[in-house]
Amino acid sequence: MTGDRPKIGIVGTGAIGGYYGGLLARAGEDVHFLLRSDYEAVKANGLRIVLDDDSDFTVNPAQAYARAEDMGPCDVVIITLKSTANTLLSELLPPLLKEDTLLVTFQNGLGAADNLAREYGAERVLGGLCFICLNRLEPGVIKNFFPGYLSIGEYEGPPQERTRQLVKKFENAGVHTILSESLGEALWRKLFWNIPFNGLAIAAGGIPTDRILADENLEKLARTLMEEVQEAAAAYGYSIPDSFIERQFELTYPMGAYKPSSLVDYLDHRNVEVEAIFGEPLRRGQAKGAGMPHLETLYSLLKRLVADNLKEN
Amino acid sequence: MTGDRPKIGIVGTGAIGGYYGGLLARAGEDVHFLLRSDYEAVKANGLRIVLDDDSDFTVNPAQAYARAEDMGPCDVVIITLKSTANTLLSELLPPLLKEDTLLVTFQNGLGAADNLAREYGAERVLGGLCFICLNRLEPGVIKNFFPGYLSIGEYEGPPQERTRQLVKKFENAGVHTILSESLGEALWRKLFWNIPFNGLAIAAGGIPTDRILADENLEKLARTLMEEVQEAAAAYGYSIPDSFIERQFELTYPMGAYKPSSLVDYLDHRNVEVEAIFGEPLRRGQAKGAGMPHLETLYSLLKRLVADNLKEN
Repeated sequence: MTGDRPKIGIVGTGAIGGYYGGLLARAGEDVHFLLRSDYEAVKANGLRIVLDDDSDFTVNPAQAYARAEDMGPCDVVIITLKSTANTLLSELLPPLLKEDTLLVTFQNGLGAADNLAREYGAERVLGGLCFICLNRLEPGVIKNFFPGYLSIGEYEGPPQERTRQLVKKFENAGVHTILSESLGEALWRKLFWNIPFNGLAIAAGGIPTDRILADENLEKLARTLMEEVQEAAAAYGYSIPDSFIERQFELTYPMGAYKPSSLVDYLDHRNVEVEAIFGEPLRRGQAKGAGMPHLETLYSLLKRLVADNLKEN
Repeated sequence: MTGDRPKIGIVGTGAIGGYYGGLLARAGEDVHFLLRSDYEAVKANGLRIVLDDDSDFTVNPAQAYARAEDMGPCDVVIITLKSTANTLLSELLPPLLKEDTLLVTFQNGLGAADNLAREYGAERVLGGLCFICLNRLEPGVIKNFFPGYLSIGEYEGPPQERTRQLVKKFENAGVHTILSESLGEALWRKLFWNIPFNGLAIAAGGIPTDRILADENLEKLARTLMEEVQEAAAAYGYSIPDSFIERQFELTYPMGAYKPSSLVDYLDHRNVEVEAIFGEPLRRGQAKGAGMPHLETLYSLLKRLVADNLKEN
């Protein structure tokens, strides 16, 4: 990062990008927002963040752009685009890049950081995992229900000073942020929850997490899916204990009738990150000899369900 | 069977029972129909069968009953009730039984013949598999689209004379009927088609067979499910060759946009034979060490989907 006040660009300003970018801007960082559907609203009224205690603040004026060319080169680019729109990155990113621009992907599932590393060089890539509950209430207005925490790590190798600085900036902005020693392991760990609960919520007919847990067969299936993720992660050298599986259930019971983000998208006939969350982990597991037959079944059904659900929109 | 013209009772006169019973009655057999929803219509107007060439005939008057007690003891009882209603059999069957009454179940999936054998003695139990396309057009009116064939076999042991006689009666009535050397194998064979196509049609969002075949992942999943059935059948001593799997696909392509019977029931918010077609084969396979993980996933999803779909009715 260049200097104390690097130019930070947020690419794909939805709930995640607007929330974290908004907090950084409030803390005095130089944050620039690239938007699509919310551009007019944010340009006119700024970006409003409603925190979990219902207090709120507005970043106004927000440094908002509809085109990457207008935003220009940044020191740090945080990518919060939905991974289903990743084909856009080859157009959106080049105007934002200097030689040493850091690329930080906050995207779900597997594959996002690898694609950036392949395209722009592994050395400049970081990844972040967002454990948080957010909703976009209306254009330019984001509500936080559960602040959770953020985990940031290097794409390759141990944490560098630049990553510690970035963690510090998020902490200064009020985000509980963990420096991840292994982004790869963190990404696999997040799948333990995302695969069964996002997947079964859709495939079992559009049901929230409490109904998955209350159904004897689905609860068992959720556990089996986690064991398949555990086996695949182990094949990549990440030994994740059984207690981590139990923890997923302990965390989910108190959530009540929670609708995972993929289910919310599905019910609104929006696209779902089927490849990043289900397809890519399946292919990687199978490439290392983990059969993942339950995930294979779930993935095949989800892919069809999501594609047909979009068409009906 | 007693004499040349045994008293034949049909229990659960829907499309299957009405069709086969109607053909037997037209051929001069002494057929008695136990009905529920269609009783009034059949009592008033008889039972009308529209054949696949659109010619039709009516059995009028039909020997129709609303209560098993009124029908009384039979020589042969053919059970065409949907297996989801099998708890009714403990009330419906006793009034129909003499000491040597044959019980012939035409029900789908696994478990029906075993339950009859356990309850009433294996010696008197036969099973039939119906490869046919029928629709009930309105109360008391059944349309045949594809006559197919019927396969009848002993629950235990090699075919007996009584079974040959029954086959002959069906042949005389115009039904192409095969004497099965092994009912057990025939039941497993039928699952090769029923499990993937009935199951995926529902779980993938209510799609007909051509869309399963046109989806690369679902077509592969259908094949994998058949391989799991093949493995489980082998564990029970039925060695079914790979060519039988290929044959299922060859038979299904010409069907076009065919809706399997379970999908038709599901779309009408009626019950689906989830346990007979999916649950029982899964439990039997797993009891012999066949994991059947793809079927396990499909079954768990279907059970929830069907139960919730009923509620919404």
